[in-house]
Amino acid sequence: MAAVTKKKKVIIDTDPGIDDAMAIFVALRSPELEVVGLTTIFGNVYTALATRNALHLLETAGRTDIPVAEGSHVTIKKATKLRIASFVHGSDGLGNQNFPPPAGKAVEQSAAAFLVEQANLYPGQIGQIIILGGAYSVNGNVNPAAEANIFGDPDAADIVFTCGADILAIGINITHQVLLSDVDRKKLEESDSKYARYLSNILGYYYDYHMDAYSITGVYLHDPTTLLAAVDPSLMTYTEGVVRVQTDGITKGLTVFDNTKKTYGEITAWCGKPTVKVAVTVDAPAVVELIMQRLLTDD
Amino acid sequence: MAAVTKKKKVIIDTDPGIDDAMAIFVALRSPELEVVGLTTIFGNVYTALATRNALHLLETAGRTDIPVAEGSHVTIKKATKLRIASFVHGSDGLGNQNFPPPAGKAVEQSAAAFLVEQANLYPGQIGQIIILGGAYSVNGNVNPAAEANIFGDPDAADIVFTCGADILAIGINITHQVLLSDVDRKKLEESDSKYARYLSNILGYYYDYHMDAYSITGVYLHDPTTLLAAVDPSLMTYTEGVVRVQTDGITKGLTVFDNTKKTYGEITAWCGKPTVKVAVTVDAPAVVELIMQRLLTDD
Repeated sequence: MAAVTKKKKVIIDTDPGIDDAMAIFVALRSPELEVVGLTTIFGNVYTALATRNALHLLETAGRTDIPVAEGSHVTIKKATKLRIASFVHGSDGLGNQNFPPPAGKAVEQSAAAFLVEQANLYPGQIGQIIILGGAYSVNGNVNPAAEANIFGDPDAADIVFTCGADILAIGINITHQVLLSDVDRKKLEESDSKYARYLSNILGYYYDYHMDAYSITGVYLHDPTTLLAAVDPSLMTYTEGVVRVQTDGITKGLTVFDNTKKTYGEITAWCGKPTVKVAVTVDAPAVVELIMQRLLTDD
Repeated sequence: MAAVTKKKKVIIDTDPGIDDAMAIFVALRSPELEVVGLTTIFGNVYTALATRNALHLLETAGRTDIPVAEGSHVTIKKATKLRIASFVHGSDGLGNQNFPPPAGKAVEQSAAAFLVEQANLYPGQIGQIIILGGAYSVNGNVNPAAEANIFGDPDAADIVFTCGADILAIGINITHQVLLSDVDRKKLEESDSKYARYLSNILGYYYDYHMDAYSITGVYLHDPTTLLAAVDPSLMTYTEGVVRVQTDGITKGLTVFDNTKKTYGEITAWCGKPTVKVAVTVDAPAVVELIMQRLLTDD
């Protein structure tokens, strides 16, 4: 037998979501990772539906041993007017496929309490927070300024980016390079793997959205790409600097990455804040290949 | 004699400023242009000093026939707390050279009234507004978000960008490619041209600033590059889209250029606004060569 290195424990904070479903399946199929839990949040769907879908996806995969902890139903400033991307993922978040409700339930703990508990369970093992979020030197996907995940709660995002943790941010400048083509889709459809079969059913809505919004035949693999940064960091390169988030006005949710060596004449809002890593290149063909490899085989 | 095409009438709105001085001299030395006036504004210096320096530069060039009209001393929202870049250009705006006060005076009209009057004098001849302003897909130079000219009055800038005029915006993503090297500086110092001699004296402060702020031996030719877009538009390429300006918060003064073909699911602040042209490439060596050529020869 080949030597097996220690598995990396991961918690996936998720709002499933079609590409979220794919990312969760890739995680469960990756021997490099041990998924110790899913936490949920609003975004593609409301939080209650994200929890339902997280439980449903784990049941589909036969992994009801993995706990789901439900996250906040409101923004950090308690706003209840949320931006929900049902036009991207369907009103159920999974391509409007009328899946039955899950048999299981979320744990009693909140997502926040679960994250703290798990961190305390494994002292010294807290590694990186890998964030799918931001649009670095490119236009956003909610509007020309903002990317969807950051737009969902810009105040919370600014706190996270400046909290001092080891953070790797993967923006849509990266994930818009990673496209699941029609050829890949056909391979999923022709596969006997249960993951491939499931995803083939829900991908139609996501393909239609991409044709409408971007005039492309293919879908962006936002979440699976981000997940692979945990599996194999060498698939990307990154640079390091301070990221701040604009929290109101027409560019609300915009991420500004201080990526210059300039010494500014005045104190700026970026001065003295902890740096984060921001992905700048991705080996897109290798990412797609690895995702397909993980999904085309069964347990 | 070679055929001479009709000169393009230009009004230079300026806050001299060391690179402004260079741009004004290049304009006066360009047979393609007829400078019909200078209008002044705060930025590198306060407006009163900008007016003084504009008059001084025209006297230095022997072109007191060109009128100077003084612009606003406050922002469009009447703010009097202005950002003045004296640490870039010196407290006098011209490298602290103790130049004597100019003999002439600005015209009685305001800059705004002068612009309207000149436009009415030449019906059908109003061409393009060429703006040095913005940082497109790059960090700013006031802080990681904002470029200095737009930061000076973001509310006014947003009105201009969305007013529907034929606008060409040249950002620091372009002008940071156009560097006057030490070799060029030496050529200016060795030249007998009065323009080269004058500029050699004031460039020291600007070189020192660039070494301090950017750790480079050379200076960015922001204003002269922008001026050359009027002389020879083929020195740059541009793309077209809507530009909006963030007017408050930590990214106040940030320009967001909608440069995507995406069809957004929601109405955005960019929807339905007139497009502008934004420069995306520049033939930097050709720009430097043309600037040097104009400055190294005398009248």
